[in-house]
Amino acid sequence: MTTRAEVQKLDAADPLAKYRAQFDLPEGVLYLDGNSLGPPPKRALEALRQTGEREWGEGLIRSWNEAGWIDLPKTCGAKIAPLIGAGAEEVIVADSVSVNLFKLAAALLGAAPGDVAVDDDEFPTDGYVMEGLARMTGATLVRLRPGDAIPMNVRVLIISLINYKTAAVADMGAVEREARSRNAAVIWDLSHATGLIDVDVKRDGAKFAIGCGYKFLNGGPGAPAFLYVAREEACRLHQPLSGWMGHAAPFDFAPDYRPAAGALRFASGTPPILSLAALDAALDVFSGVELKLVEAKARGLGDLFLERAMALGLKTISPLQGGRRGGHVSLIHENGYAIMQALIARGIIGDFRAPDLMRFGFSPLFLRYTDVCEVADALAEILRTEEWRDPRYARRGVVT
Amino acid sequence: MTTRAEVQKLDAADPLAKYRAQFDLPEGVLYLDGNSLGPPPKRALEALRQTGEREWGEGLIRSWNEAGWIDLPKTCGAKIAPLIGAGAEEVIVADSVSVNLFKLAAALLGAAPGDVAVDDDEFPTDGYVMEGLARMTGATLVRLRPGDAIPMNVRVLIISLINYKTAAVADMGAVEREARSRNAAVIWDLSHATGLIDVDVKRDGAKFAIGCGYKFLNGGPGAPAFLYVAREEACRLHQPLSGWMGHAAPFDFAPDYRPAAGALRFASGTPPILSLAALDAALDVFSGVELKLVEAKARGLGDLFLERAMALGLKTISPLQGGRRGGHVSLIHENGYAIMQALIARGIIGDFRAPDLMRFGFSPLFLRYTDVCEVADALAEILRTEEWRDPRYARRGVVT
Repeated sequence: MTTRAEVQKLDAADPLAKYRAQFDLPEGVLYLDGNSLGPPPKRALEALRQTGEREWGEGLIRSWNEAGWIDLPKTCGAKIAPLIGAGAEEVIVADSVSVNLFKLAAALLGAAPGDVAVDDDEFPTDGYVMEGLARMTGATLVRLRPGDAIPMNVRVLIISLINYKTAAVADMGAVEREARSRNAAVIWDLSHATGLIDVDVKRDGAKFAIGCGYKFLNGGPGAPAFLYVAREEACRLHQPLSGWMGHAAPFDFAPDYRPAAGALRFASGTPPILSLAALDAALDVFSGVELKLVEAKARGLGDLFLERAMALGLKTISPLQGGRRGGHVSLIHENGYAIMQALIARGIIGDFRAPDLMRFGFSPLFLRYTDVCEVADALAEILRTEEWRDPRYARRGVVT
Repeated sequence: MTTRAEVQKLDAADPLAKYRAQFDLPEGVLYLDGNSLGPPPKRALEALRQTGEREWGEGLIRSWNEAGWIDLPKTCGAKIAPLIGAGAEEVIVADSVSVNLFKLAAALLGAAPGDVAVDDDEFPTDGYVMEGLARMTGATLVRLRPGDAIPMNVRVLIISLINYKTAAVADMGAVEREARSRNAAVIWDLSHATGLIDVDVKRDGAKFAIGCGYKFLNGGPGAPAFLYVAREEACRLHQPLSGWMGHAAPFDFAPDYRPAAGALRFASGTPPILSLAALDAALDVFSGVELKLVEAKARGLGDLFLERAMALGLKTISPLQGGRRGGHVSLIHENGYAIMQALIARGIIGDFRAPDLMRFGFSPLFLRYTDVCEVADALAEILRTEEWRDPRYARRGVVT
């Protein structure tokens, strides 16, 4: 087992250690849920204050132009683009992941009618939205199980690059090759991947993706989502939520819709500027960050945690050392809910997914290797003393 | 003409005068664009700070439950409901006006296939979105001119209660009666009406509406929009953007979509909490406000302005005294752009719509009758001295 001294050496040698100072983390909390909601970068809180008090309060309507509000969907998109290997004008920020998924899938089915497929263990909302699209278009929604081939009539396939439960990383290049051979388009849900692993859509041939702004991008609760569409595909696609923000000239107030160039045609209505401003500033944290280092540290933090968790006799559904894994580790325990509550009571915040999954997220920009040891030590003690049996930790009510 | 002394008396007797103190208005500015972007209520800026620093920064993921984030779409909806005469569970806040319009119109066409109609002088984005829906469903998009009957095959009609250009108020009851006789459903765009006039959807038989949060509701730039659906209609409608926030039990992570009861089934993805929090607080300004008084004062402010503008020989496309008018007055002038720039240079902020429209918004909660005189005086001077001819005020670039 890695010794405490070795762990301290890892922190001392960590090239990303300096980024921790950019976050506003509460005292006495070890935050292992950055995979669900990233904590605020200090500059995001500052931007929120400025946008509210100065731009909205003093600039008022003038800020649409003078403070650059009108360009935020493009500005934010251009900051996300390099994190996934896309060109600046191939990414916009707009709406939510669900809405962006609908727009992209509807546009693709409009260009090539057929069925849609979603992995059986995909994050549920992606499947729900495809149910809605299928009902509306008459397409069949196919649920794929691991190892299933893509059925012949499927034109659009939705898949997460990193699975929300297991953190297993899909092989983007291999999926794209299979999809191409079946004449299907793949929409990648990059929600758990962006800002964490070194995604390269160009290298892997991915043309379409969506993803959220509030996990490893730290853009704030419910931060607007992004949408990527390869430039050679955008011009042939017509998305049905064709609101004025995706118009080629929104302020001409022309009677007919004329789509903007590039990904911008996937914008719809007026975007929520206060939320966008926080995301915009949060994205600046990534300026100059080498994603290979982030990915390697996420791997290192997770490996260290798994080493300790396995030594405690715990079970995981996440890839072990050697397999490709994203930014979190999921442990299975029948008393997972109560154990997680006991951890939270100690200021160690992870999350729980029914019926028995404890998720521990390892955000490389603000966590230290020694933090991982502290979590593992607390987990060991909670199991040894059985303090999770405390009735305060019994399951009740809504769990997010 | 109303004398200065009479105008001062109007302010002294104004039962809404006390609300001005709730807004954060910059020094030296007369803001006549609350119909486009309402200014920040002080409590909205405070809520934004609290939500960012305390709820996001300290509460982190726990705030979804502990700070009530998860309920904000319903909480905000319940605050808007009494402003339009709807029940609390008949209104939700989600997405943008464009996206909400799509969801509602698609759900209605799903239940009763046919064509859609939009007024020719409707705010363009409503037409753009219906173009997208028509393209996707194969429906025909009919553009109606004033006085046109609703064509036989039209199942869904989109109409603004208050026209964005003229501020003319449509007769909701009469339109509903005609639509019922034609078997068509009406979706009301209440963007320019909510928080300004005493809308009563129940009295007038309106079953479906959408509207924005950033005009007279003062919810902040691009604040999330609302959607109203009568309780007896909601249960039979299936909207296609069926994301997890509209699921009956989103945190069960069930594989299949099961719509929530009431308007909540029209929610889609994760909402932008920072923007929602500002709107939520802004809506509290309306607690206890009598909308009949607001409507009457909007009328009074506009009448006073029109009296002065007509005396200057200016032309309007807005209803004059006697006709029903919303919260703004639109003047036509071939040099409207430059005149508006000259006003803005004096700290009087209205807006301009190409080619020749100057819009002056009269938000009753923070404007005074004496402010209207000040605006009219400035306008008179700008016209008399022709200071609008200053090359600094010549038209160029994007105009929002």
